[in-house]
Amino acid sequence: MGNSIGELFRITSFGESHGRCVGVIVDGCPAGLALQEEDIQKEVDKRKPGFAGTTNRLERDRVEIYSGVLNGYTTGAPICLILKNENINSSDYENNRMKPRPGHADYTAFMKYGGFNDYKGGGRFSGRITAGFVMAGAIAKLILNTINVEILAHTIQIGELIAKKQGIDAIRNNVDKNHIRCADLDSARKMVALIEEVQNVGDSIGGVIEGIAVNLPVGLGEPVFDTLEGDLSKAIFAIPAVKGVEFGSGMISATRKGSENNDCFRIENKRVVTRTNNSGGILGGMSNGMPLELRVAIKPTASISQKQQTVDMDSLEEVELSIKGRHDSCIVPRVVVVVEAMMAIVLCDFAIRAGLLRRILK
Amino acid sequence: MGNSIGELFRITSFGESHGRCVGVIVDGCPAGLALQEEDIQKEVDKRKPGFAGTTNRLERDRVEIYSGVLNGYTTGAPICLILKNENINSSDYENNRMKPRPGHADYTAFMKYGGFNDYKGGGRFSGRITAGFVMAGAIAKLILNTINVEILAHTIQIGELIAKKQGIDAIRNNVDKNHIRCADLDSARKMVALIEEVQNVGDSIGGVIEGIAVNLPVGLGEPVFDTLEGDLSKAIFAIPAVKGVEFGSGMISATRKGSENNDCFRIENKRVVTRTNNSGGILGGMSNGMPLELRVAIKPTASISQKQQTVDMDSLEEVELSIKGRHDSCIVPRVVVVVEAMMAIVLCDFAIRAGLLRRILK
Amino acid sequence: MGNSIGELFRITSFGESHGRCVGVIVDGCPAGLALQEEDIQKEVDKRKPGFAGTTNRLERDRVEIYSGVLNGYTTGAPICLILKNENINSSDYENNRMKPRPGHADYTAFMKYGGFNDYKGGGRFSGRITAGFVMAGAIAKLILNTINVEILAHTIQIGELIAKKQGIDAIRNNVDKNHIRCADLDSARKMVALIEEVQNVGDSIGGVIEGIAVNLPVGLGEPVFDTLEGDLSKAIFAIPAVKGVEFGSGMISATRKGSENNDCFRIENKRVVTRTNNSGGILGGMSNGMPLELRVAIKPTASISQKQQTVDMDSLEEVELSIKGRHDSCIVPRVVVVVEAMMAIVLCDFAIRAGLLRRILK
Amino acid sequence: MGNSIGELFRITSFGESHGRCVGVIVDGCPAGLALQEEDIQKEVDKRKPGFAGTTNRLERDRVEIYSGVLNGYTTGAPICLILKNENINSSDYENNRMKPRPGHADYTAFMKYGGFNDYKGGGRFSGRITAGFVMAGAIAKLILNTINVEILAHTIQIGELIAKKQGIDAIRNNVDKNHIRCADLDSARKMVALIEEVQNVGDSIGGVIEGIAVNLPVGLGEPVFDTLEGDLSKAIFAIPAVKGVEFGSGMISATRKGSENNDCFRIENKRVVTRTNNSGGILGGMSNGMPLELRVAIKPTASISQKQQTVDMDSLEEVELSIKGRHDSCIVPRVVVVVEAMMAIVLCDFAIRAGLLRRILK
Repeated sequence: MGNSIGELFRITSFGESHGRCVGVIVDGCPAGLALQEEDIQKEVDKRKPGFAGTTNRLERDRVEIYSGVLNGYTTGAPICLILKNENINSSDYENNRMKPRPGHADYTAFMKYGGFNDYKGGGRFSGRITAGFVMAGAIAKLILNTINVEILAHTIQIGELIAKKQGIDAIRNNVDKNHIRCADLDSARKMVALIEEVQNVGDSIGGVIEGIAVNLPVGLGEPVFDTLEGDLSKAIFAIPAVKGVEFGSGMISATRKGSENNDCFRIENKRVVTRTNNSGGILGGMSNGMPLELRVAIKPTASISQKQQTVDMDSLEEVELSIKGRHDSCIVPRVVVVVEAMMAIVLCDFAIRAGLLRRILK
Repeated sequence: MGNSIGELFRITSFGESHGRCVGVIVDGCPAGLALQEEDIQKEVDKRKPGFAGTTNRLERDRVEIYSGVLNGYTTGAPICLILKNENINSSDYENNRMKPRPGHADYTAFMKYGGFNDYKGGGRFSGRITAGFVMAGAIAKLILNTINVEILAHTIQIGELIAKKQGIDAIRNNVDKNHIRCADLDSARKMVALIEEVQNVGDSIGGVIEGIAVNLPVGLGEPVFDTLEGDLSKAIFAIPAVKGVEFGSGMISATRKGSENNDCFRIENKRVVTRTNNSGGILGGMSNGMPLELRVAIKPTASISQKQQTVDMDSLEEVELSIKGRHDSCIVPRVVVVVEAMMAIVLCDFAIRAGLLRRILK
Repeated sequence: MGNSIGELFRITSFGESHGRCVGVIVDGCPAGLALQEEDIQKEVDKRKPGFAGTTNRLERDRVEIYSGVLNGYTTGAPICLILKNENINSSDYENNRMKPRPGHADYTAFMKYGGFNDYKGGGRFSGRITAGFVMAGAIAKLILNTINVEILAHTIQIGELIAKKQGIDAIRNNVDKNHIRCADLDSARKMVALIEEVQNVGDSIGGVIEGIAVNLPVGLGEPVFDTLEGDLSKAIFAIPAVKGVEFGSGMISATRKGSENNDCFRIENKRVVTRTNNSGGILGGMSNGMPLELRVAIKPTASISQKQQTVDMDSLEEVELSIKGRHDSCIVPRVVVVVEAMMAIVLCDFAIRAGLLRRILK
Repeated sequence: MGNSIGELFRITSFGESHGRCVGVIVDGCPAGLALQEEDIQKEVDKRKPGFAGTTNRLERDRVEIYSGVLNGYTTGAPICLILKNENINSSDYENNRMKPRPGHADYTAFMKYGGFNDYKGGGRFSGRITAGFVMAGAIAKLILNTINVEILAHTIQIGELIAKKQGIDAIRNNVDKNHIRCADLDSARKMVALIEEVQNVGDSIGGVIEGIAVNLPVGLGEPVFDTLEGDLSKAIFAIPAVKGVEFGSGMISATRKGSENNDCFRIENKRVVTRTNNSGGILGGMSNGMPLELRVAIKPTASISQKQQTVDMDSLEEVELSIKGRHDSCIVPRVVVVVEAMMAIVLCDFAIRAGLLRRILK
């Protein structure tokens, strides 16, 4: 259980890393949205490994629509999207099956599912599962476009390297210009170098992604429990390797005084806006019309080729493990589009719950 | 909508800060749990304002059980718990009704509910609403006790003051010894001084709370969406003023290498454990048997007595606002028990979903 | 668990027959609806025992609004409604606690909740619980009024006595004119006589209620699972004593040919309508614009004063039981308003899901 | 929306009659269940058209498992099951697209989805969608088998022809012996003749199916809203053509006296049982340990070849319609296995909610 998320725009994830496919069902997409496999493919391609630091697994993923679309338009029925798995080699997983990788879900999955879990390639706990999230997110983005909401995410930190803060336009323009998906092109170059350095010693490194949503109407979110922060963080923590989520001034707000942190209101073009945006565009769990801003901490990839200590779950003896196979030494750039997807899915659900994207009733 | 949380242990929040009451319904509590009003009162009292830095509103809250308990035992029926509101003065709210307080939900609530929202004392967006969470959390803690799970939270930072790390025993013993609910008694004293200082200039200050759950069985959590991190963060973001939630090494993991951050497995008393606990006791969204550890950033209280810039929502003119009335200059100590409550509610739900606390069927 | 129903208009039931109160939380009521305790009281009064055949328990129920309403208007927050229990005598229940009443939930509740269930007056399984449904239904009806949807229910059968079919106007006008809530006034008189006859021999009798919703927009319902029939029947089966629910031609449709049962389409005032209404206003689980029509079979009240065979759950011996206390010999007339309430609750939820009653977002 | 059902055992339906496939996701199946495509195929084959009265569409359906199963055992991950559509001819649907078939969902679907719905073969509103339910039901049955619960359904009425009541053994043995799936073999022959007669004049006919579940533990069901009757009826009304659902003495109970209808308790082999089973095995919405019995009224198939009156949705003129193509003149026999499937799905969910089929946690 637990493979669905959303109230009125609900996605259901299925599939495994080394199984037949990875897929997603999107239920609640309004009828009449123009939708082609290419629209979704474009987003999926952003998750592709693209440079030295990422896995050299060839993902020639082709999005296939199995249901819910007729003659290029959504029908109002559930949309089933599938990516078939190809180019799979599970031999390393067979050999190390009883030796859980440190930092990975091998041990907990084995215990929870009594050893019946699909362990190949991490099964349900592989980053590849997020390709399904990206497919659903592609649809959510198209829906949000119809009310002019735009979602942007970008890499702002790799290890200790922190990118210079960029404006919305720079982010929009630069993020596709480098494999790191960092809008500060200068930092991007240094980040690539850092990742290569780490990779050369069989290690991995973490980073931070910032996600932004602009043009949100005021009042999205359904307090007290279904808040913007609550539902966004829940969706984002479904991405493997996420260890923290913060909004606006985030963890730093803990060090501040109210007089520093409060965003004073003012009038701009007859609209109420705030002078600063420490709230990250959210007050009382609801959008306040300012850009929604969040940051996501990604831990270093657990699968490293350096030798590590683990245990043999059969013999309960301590053993050494060295992981072979294809692994990213920095997953951050590939997670950027996944953060966008999760944001789009949650915001689309809230927009529909608010009655902004009503179905047709005459 | 959005006032319920949980799958099999579900709580529904209701009531307003200056209305008739604050309350909660707990549905899914197993039958046969010994439960008295005193058990709940004890937890609610931990939320009481206790020292200079907190509001001097007299909360003589008396927990009343309205349903679901017979002769001192839960019946399996929904439990309705109510705290009547007393000692209310809403005059300041009347005067400033159209002047939204910076950093507060006044503006978004006005917009979302078309001006019909209860604005007195912040209505549904007051910290007082969390007294209902605490009542539900008291029941969740009692249920978790039956499987030996213990929940502990404590203040670890106020402003820039960071407490020294303490062991579980020190936390358990010290947290009730000071109003700051900080286990490092030395830091606690400094924190009190800092809060008084801030209060004297009509300002407020934020902080960080750490929450810990010990003795969790392996495998709680329902990936890929209903993860421990996901459901815990969603529940915790329902607490007003929370701006960030992180698990284990959290935001810091972004700066690390895999070889530093991975928790190697080893054997201890024939059980699989990890050498370090950077994962915060969670792998793949499921408990791994190590202590679950999270940290919550609390922003400085929005209501400060210093003059602030805001707008008049009628005239759309910029105006000055100075807030009177009773307000905490640091809410952190009072939120500690709320963090415990949210953790208990979520973990109780997962334990029941895992079939650990089954209802009686013969 | 299981005490909430609805997606966007969600009600949560709580309270017991002989406990402190019976109550309901309504979450999802749009802000800005004019609402007074009297509006709800009026509906609750329709459930009152009114004549010879119904219990002589004096229900001086006073509806109290505990939350969600300010200055006579709903605020968008959850609405808590409470009826305090008065005039309770549980002695008969104490004496017969281990002797389950045939046809009642005593046995199954005892087994499910391990004997901890509140057995007094039937606890959660008393018809009195439906007073909470009626309170929620009162709000749903007011919401539906804003889009001109009207809900009507009436008694059409008691035992073998079947009322003559009446038009909508006759139903609307006559149903309040007699305690049986039967629109055919002639049959109503005979029904009263029949119920008295049955009561005189310590027995009880069943009946049938018809529920109608007029002016529904086309397309309410969310197939394939959240159909009008599915959600309506689920809600109605929550009423104790309901044993069957049918729509349009219902069970009789099983005996028919397609050429008899199909409702041909035609044009009336430039709108598509059907010549007949065997579908009961529902096609493919969605409203078709014709009156929604359903029928509900109510079994005879289980609590009769005649001697019955039962068992002693302690000794596992067969024993005789004779039930004292106040019981209806025909519950049908009192259930009429409950059927209306359940219909209103479900249809209100579907209308909100369809975006017809959107919250305010500017 | 509305394409998922269930709390802990949740199925999500997708696919269209003349689209690429019909499918289902099953989330919440415990890990470790032996499962092959053949196990599911066997159930799907029972839905196949088998004799003169049913469509001659060749359904060479091959069940394919897309996820959730490894080496012949379920993994605890969501199971995706797909039946590809073959042998499709949609020409008749193209021609009559704007002429809604009486008794069918064409009109309401067109209105709800603004004309974007997949109209070919009825799209989402085709009986073929229930093949997905049957696949999910096959898994639910296997799970229920592990606690010895057995589900049986059979045809008990076609038109006015009512089969003689049969015992459980006769039903189990006879239902596969004839295409009508009627346990009274004599009536079965007459039913075939009746269906052929109706078919010869281009008409269709309805019928009644009885569903039985034996060996249920006492206490399944989660009142007050998630009752056995409520959840079973909701699930069963998702089957196209169902117009009524009743339990135990059902609609007839309306005519009865309490002294006739109450099921007295007695002791049998030290267990509490009832002398009669008018309750259909359900008291207070929970199983009482007796066989659960329900009956489902199926209306005559809407698609008949006789000329019918309808309208043209473009011109809003009244027109004649004659439906060509492959259609069942009696759908009842093919629905029998679907009723079993829906019962299994709901009961499996309740069994898991009751903690009877817990996941593995060590």
